[in-house]
Amino acid sequence: MTDIVTSGTAQLEWVLRSRPSGRPRATDVELVESTLGRPGAGQVRVRNLVMSVEPYMRGRMGGEATYAEPYGLGEPMLAPTVGVVIESDHAALPPGSLVLHDFGWRIEALVDASDCRRLRHDDLPAAVHLSVLGIPGMTAWVGVERIAQVRSGDVVFVSSAAGAVGSTAVQLAKQRGAVVIASAGSPEKVALTEALGADAAFDHHDGPAKDLLRTAMSDLGVTALDVYFDNVGGEQLEAAVRVLADHARIALCGMISIYNSAEPVPGPNNLIKLIWRRARMEGFLLADHLDAQDQFEDEMADLVRTERIRPVHTEFPGGVAGAWDAFVGMLDGAATGKALVPLVPTT
Amino acid sequence: MTDIVTSGTAQLEWVLRSRPSGRPRATDVELVESTLGRPGAGQVRVRNLVMSVEPYMRGRMGGEATYAEPYGLGEPMLAPTVGVVIESDHAALPPGSLVLHDFGWRIEALVDASDCRRLRHDDLPAAVHLSVLGIPGMTAWVGVERIAQVRSGDVVFVSSAAGAVGSTAVQLAKQRGAVVIASAGSPEKVALTEALGADAAFDHHDGPAKDLLRTAMSDLGVTALDVYFDNVGGEQLEAAVRVLADHARIALCGMISIYNSAEPVPGPNNLIKLIWRRARMEGFLLADHLDAQDQFEDEMADLVRTERIRPVHTEFPGGVAGAWDAFVGMLDGAATGKALVPLVPTT
Repeated sequence: MTDIVTSGTAQLEWVLRSRPSGRPRATDVELVESTLGRPGAGQVRVRNLVMSVEPYMRGRMGGEATYAEPYGLGEPMLAPTVGVVIESDHAALPPGSLVLHDFGWRIEALVDASDCRRLRHDDLPAAVHLSVLGIPGMTAWVGVERIAQVRSGDVVFVSSAAGAVGSTAVQLAKQRGAVVIASAGSPEKVALTEALGADAAFDHHDGPAKDLLRTAMSDLGVTALDVYFDNVGGEQLEAAVRVLADHARIALCGMISIYNSAEPVPGPNNLIKLIWRRARMEGFLLADHLDAQDQFEDEMADLVRTERIRPVHTEFPGGVAGAWDAFVGMLDGAATGKALVPLVPTT
Repeated sequence: MTDIVTSGTAQLEWVLRSRPSGRPRATDVELVESTLGRPGAGQVRVRNLVMSVEPYMRGRMGGEATYAEPYGLGEPMLAPTVGVVIESDHAALPPGSLVLHDFGWRIEALVDASDCRRLRHDDLPAAVHLSVLGIPGMTAWVGVERIAQVRSGDVVFVSSAAGAVGSTAVQLAKQRGAVVIASAGSPEKVALTEALGADAAFDHHDGPAKDLLRTAMSDLGVTALDVYFDNVGGEQLEAAVRVLADHARIALCGMISIYNSAEPVPGPNNLIKLIWRRARMEGFLLADHLDAQDQFEDEMADLVRTERIRPVHTEFPGGVAGAWDAFVGMLDGAATGKALVPLVPTT
């Protein structure tokens, strides 16, 4: 395996071979050699620097219509990736330009310039553009800012709070002046959320979610949640619904607890509390909020530069060949913060 | 039993004796004689004309903190009631004034004038002020107008659509130009919803809700719901979540399917679709929307006078003594539209 290829020679990319039911298996995908040509009209050739593994890729493998188009069988696995333009047929993206594109999980890619977003804050590390400045960061921002509308003094519960989205949501909620309760899946992750500013935190393995949440709230002297930023669904969602404040908001961001379930999982048994508490539960997708991208990036870049928001990354080894293990590891909870696969050593 | 009492003599009122678990029993309440004095300072004595039986009374009997304060044991069962002032210590409510108050389930009541709402549209029948112009009507209006924000062309599904709230919601949604699908609990009720304007309707006993809803949608040539006005929760909520349109709104108004359940009932197993469809599920209570009461009443009174909204009532017999059977009958689905107990023959 090498991280260096030459134009016109073979390179490596991941393709989908079969659609998983339940937990994805290594036989569902294959790392294949392919040949990259020269850029066509308006295209650029990008040498990828760092690739993302994203929870939503599990949905795209499944072939069902979720919100993102399924990957085709035998087709490449698309994923957000930061790279550098090394050959260009578009004046706006000369060689050397740093770009974000969606044609990752390969060493190099030919991409239409219109499908590239040139990094606007390229003083920041490439990886940051896939984490706090990328999809998970903006997802957290939309959830906190537009869906949950977190205000100073709100009591905010964030699940999967050591994850890419959750770790950003915790920090953004703290920036907004909220009291933040975090849950995560290991003592180390719990400690991380506290280091990021969470006022209380628990490991969801330590007991029934409703008890753990109650204890955390009691420790803080709060009696109800104004906001639940939900990344997991299932038991923690039910636990949060139990203790909502009047006019509470639940931002439904992900349900990682059920992504790998082949069978439907019952929902919360207490949704009637949404009536009693006049609460709102709202799902959202980034795609509806792209109007805010520049505003988000400028705000977030400033927060990162001034170290008020700390990017949290787990870098998986192996270069392009490591993407699959990184993906499965991320689904299994092995990543803290954003799961990334560097193709070129970045430090 | 008589419907006529004299001031200072015994009259009849219902009190709570024990808190039901599951289906309420007759032994949970008692009809007792009480003595009514003269109005104190700022009070009026009201002869009740027509009493309401409301689903939320079940919650108030249970003693849990829902959204309304529980009834005290040994205390009167409060319920919305329209009556006429027959003795007054408040200049704004002279004898003969028609008022709405919350001290029903009795023949006469002493009420602070500040706890009475003088009917603003007293050209309309007294009973209408408990149905389309009362709590259920305004609940439907808030759900359609403020929570679901029904717009012309929306596909709107209303469950329990022959009920007091549902029958009004169906008609309001039609007034807004929506395509309306209704569900109800008997062939007669289904026929009623169609008579009220529903474009398609089904009896929820006729099969799995998801199949019945799909068939109704298919008959209308529509593929997704923009709005679900939920009065029942449970299986129909899950069925609706399955077929939401992008940016759909679910107004959670009631969950009559679970009010009488002593055990928690699992929620929808497909809430992840709220994310995929970027849908909003929001509970609401009338108490948060009292700022709109005059606007609502004026609009609704006009709709009733011009026969664009048809009040639907089921009057239970027996005068004050009939309230309990009316209440249990309403919970069991015996009522079509608003369940009422006239104390004085109104026709």
